[in-house]
This record gives sequence, C-alpha cells and structure tokens, in this order.
Amino acid sequence: MNLTILGCYAATPRTFTNPTSQVLEINNRLFLIDCGEGTQVQLRKNKIKFSAINQIFISHLHGDHVYGLIGLISTFTLLNRVTPLTVFGPVGIKEMIKLQLKLANSWPQYELTFVELSSTESEVIFEDDKVLVKTIPLKHRVYTNGFLFQEKPKERNLNIDKVREYEIETCFFQNIKNGKDITLDDGRVIPNSVLTFDPPSPKSYAFCSDTLYNEDVIPIISGVDVLYHEATFLESESHYTERTMHSTAKEAARIALKANVGQLILGHYSTRYESIQLFKEEAVTVFENTLLADDGVFFEF
Amino acid sequence: MNLTILGCYAATPRTFTNPTSQVLEINNRLFLIDCGEGTQVQLRKNKIKFSAINQIFISHLHGDHVYGLIGLISTFTLLNRVTPLTVFGPVGIKEMIKLQLKLANSWPQYELTFVELSSTESEVIFEDDKVLVKTIPLKHRVYTNGFLFQEKPKERNLNIDKVREYEIETCFFQNIKNGKDITLDDGRVIPNSVLTFDPPSPKSYAFCSDTLYNEDVIPIISGVDVLYHEATFLESESHYTERTMHSTAKEAARIALKANVGQLILGHYSTRYESIQLFKEEAVTVFENTLLADDGVFFEF
Repeated sequence: MNLTILGCYAATPRTFTNPTSQVLEINNRLFLIDCGEGTQVQLRKNKIKFSAINQIFISHLHGDHVYGLIGLISTFTLLNRVTPLTVFGPVGIKEMIKLQLKLANSWPQYELTFVELSSTESEVIFEDDKVLVKTIPLKHRVYTNGFLFQEKPKERNLNIDKVREYEIETCFFQNIKNGKDITLDDGRVIPNSVLTFDPPSPKSYAFCSDTLYNEDVIPIISGVDVLYHEATFLESESHYTERTMHSTAKEAARIALKANVGQLILGHYSTRYESIQLFKEEAVTVFENTLLADDGVFFEF
Repeated sequence: MNLTILGCYAATPRTFTNPTSQVLEINNRLFLIDCGEGTQVQLRKNKIKFSAINQIFISHLHGDHVYGLIGLISTFTLLNRVTPLTVFGPVGIKEMIKLQLKLANSWPQYELTFVELSSTESEVIFEDDKVLVKTIPLKHRVYTNGFLFQEKPKERNLNIDKVREYEIETCFFQNIKNGKDITLDDGRVIPNSVLTFDPPSPKSYAFCSDTLYNEDVIPIISGVDVLYHEATFLESESHYTERTMHSTAKEAARIALKANVGQLILGHYSTRYESIQLFKEEAVTVFENTLLADDGVFFEF
C-alpha cells in the first residue's frame, strides 16, 4: 500500500502549494481521491500514469476538492482513453460535469459513469476481488464523505516443504491457498494450518477531509493502518472550527487515538501558518505516530 | 499597452506549459482574456494583482480556455473581494458557473455579472471613457469570439509655450485639450492646432483564438497595432485544420498581412512540435513582424 500526495493545502491553489488530491495504491488497485484544480499537472509531475486511474472518489463539491475534475476528464478524452472511468461523489457532480462537457461539445468516447452519493450512513460504494471501499460520513458545510479503503483478505501462502512432504498434487494448491484441509489417498486429513502460512494481514486506509471534529467516524475507521485526517487549524485558531467546520491538528490526533489507528497523516493545512511542522508538534502531544502530508510526498506502508 | 502571456498552449495543461490566458493592460485598464485551468496560479507567478481584474473575456467554452474560471471566481470570494466582476462569454457560461457555485454553497459576496454573447456579428460589448471592446466572430467547433480592444482617442497635448504667449487662463485648458479653438478678449480666434500637439495615437489589440482560417475577421481587425492569432499547427499538419477548426502559422501570417496589422503574435501551439521557433520561421515567410507568445512572456507596445 502506498500513497502519493498531489496536493494537501486548504482553500486555493498557490504558486508552491496545491489543493487536495492524492493517489492511493492498495492491493494493486490505484484510486484517485479528490481532484482540486491543477491535479492533472500534479499527476504528470509525480509520474503517475493517467491510464492507471479507473476510479475517482470526490469527498465534496468545494472547489479545492473538485475543480480539477472536469479538466482531467477532458484530458482523458484528448488522450484517446478507452477504459471506462467511474466517479464517486455527492449528488450534483454528474450534472456539474455533464453540463460542462455539453457546453464544450466534447462528450468522452470512453464510458464515464457517475455514482452519486447522498446517504448519511456509511455504505459500501465499490468492491472487487481485491478491495472494498466504504464512505465515512463527515460533518462539513456541504454534504461530505471520507472514504475507507480495505484490502480483501489475501489467500494463504503455501508451505511448499509440507506440500512436497505429503506429495500433494498441484491441482489442489488453490484449494489449500483458499484455506481448505486436504484428505490424502490413505484417508489421513492434513489440516490447512500445517500446509500454509498466514498471508500478510489486509491493509486499510481512511481518508477524512473536510470535517468538524466528529467522533461518529471512530467506529467506521477503528483500527485502520493509516488515517489521513484534515488539520486545517492549530488549537490557537480553534475558534474558527465551528464556523468553517474544520478540525485542528490536536482534534485529528484525538480521533486517531480514539480509533486506535496505526498511523496518522495530517493535511489540508491553512496557509496562514509559517510552517507545517507546527501541526505535527501539536498532534504528537496526543498521538505519537503522526506524519505530515506535503505536496509530492510518497508514503509506503 | 502591454500584454502578459499566462498560458498559450493548446489542449491540456502540462508540467511546463499552460492553456490559454493572458492579461492586457491598455490605457490603464486591465483585462483578463480567457482562463484555462491554472490561470490563478499563473496570475500569482506573474505577480498580477487579483484585485486589478474587473472584466474577464472568455472566447469559448472549451476547457483550455475556461476551466480555470470557476476557481478564480471562488478565490476572489476567499480573498474577500468587494469590487464587482463582469464576465463576458458565450451563452451557457452563466449556468455553468452558477451551478458550480450553488453546489459548493458559496455564492460570491461581490457582485458577479455575466454578459452572455450569442451574436455572429461583431458587436461592442464593453465601453468606458478609456477603452472600447468589440467581439470578433471566429470559426471554431463551438461558438467562439475573439476580442478587439481599442483605446479611445486621447485628449490633445497643450503647447504650453503658445498658451503662455496668448496668456490663456487655466480654466480654458480642458476645452483646448478637447480640441476647441479659443477666442481671445481682443476677438482674435486662435485655432486649436496652434495651441496643441497631436496626442499619442490610440492603440488597439486583437485576440483571435481559436479559429479556422477566416478572412471575415480582416475588416474588423484591419490596421490594429497588435494581432494575437492562434497557430495550432504548421503547414505540414494543415490536413488537421478543417477537422479541428484551427489555423497554421502561415495562415495566421496571411491574416496579419491582409489586415495590415502592425505586429503579429503567435500562440495556441500544439505540443507535438519540438520547438515553437518553427512557428515563427513559417510565419515570417509571409509576415515579417512576427513574435512568439510563450508562458510568462511580457510584451510592451
């Protein structure tokens, strides 16, 4: 599992900072999460293949999370994309994109599907044989979801020495990897635990931006390996959080602690502060295992 | 009169090239022309004050000319803009922007006005005491206008020696600057031509992007000081011009020659060519006084 931060600053694109967008690679699947203005250039700068993106998840319809989407969709068209693309986002996103495509008279030649979200309960919105994606309802000024990405349990690893010892034929290997016991020709039953090793444990990643401090997310994200949580402000500006419906670094750390996550990554910084190190200094007083997102940073887990 | 090129490449924003946007300063007025994705960052990089922009002219609703507009309008809001903003562009631009503002639940606190264009004849769309702006109907895959910016004739310069010689009082100066003759107390009439020098001649700038080769524009732009004309292709790719409705560098030069303009600036280059110098080499065979636009280039006329 790895994460590339394309942009992680609040509000507007600036000369050296980009609005929210990130690419998660999990179990050989690549997902684009949010798409602020300039995302397609950030994808190029970070050498991410446009054709590897087949699903885009949009948390909410504020500009710094979505105004790069129409440009990316149009560029896919110019690049002669053929593979289908699915966009998950709040109700309204389909109308917003389709109107712009209609006015430009340039409907994509690839299949473009929108999955519009409106539930205020966590729900599974994507599932294939490798990954499952659920929404994380957040509290913001407009309808907003975070997203939980979970690897599906992987197949068990063969203990090749034991398999040879019992002279088991290869046609049974998939059953063994799937957890089945094996009955030998002489009637002996060899339990699966003898024939396999545990697979790597499934990884999980939770993206929570933008949101007021909200303990309702804790049961949904409990125990995730990595939590990205917005930290727009420091505690010194906590009087802004209610009106803007954002969190402080300390609040993000409190959520990480209460949800017992493995790792916290902070982002969505207000540009009023002279250094993002201040966010980390504040968060580690509550939750030690805290990292800072920054544009162009690559995390491997 | 000066011109800052924020972006002048066709199709999509790339790591080192930007889609169309430029800032024209003429007779102390500042106009933003087109607004591809990333324009607000280009404005910052080129140190152009956001608050100096009060009129935005959009040629057409293809992404590389307009997908930066919603972000710029939103950033004006975040910057607490109070002065009104007027956007001139094709019918549909108002619905496109308003839908996105509605979905973001963030209508600007400043007055935002749209002047929607639909005429296929050249028309005056903006006029104040210093500048006049007319549309230049172009031929492209969607409804498209270029724009002609003309300085209004300036007041005549006082010949201060002559004014003193005839002992003319200061209360008459404005009349003299406006071109009036003066009758002295003794009845003598002093013609204005004796009392004044010619003012600098009014400057004019024509922006023509995107368009198929189109001689209909010639009477509209005839004799302008500076013509920006798109040159998406070289003649070697002239077989693409009909389908894409773009021009070659040589065609741009032909328009410049036939319209007897002072200066031609080329732009809107396809990124398929290894050097934009090729565009100039082709154009100067037809029209000598040719310059190349490039991102971040500043022209003073």
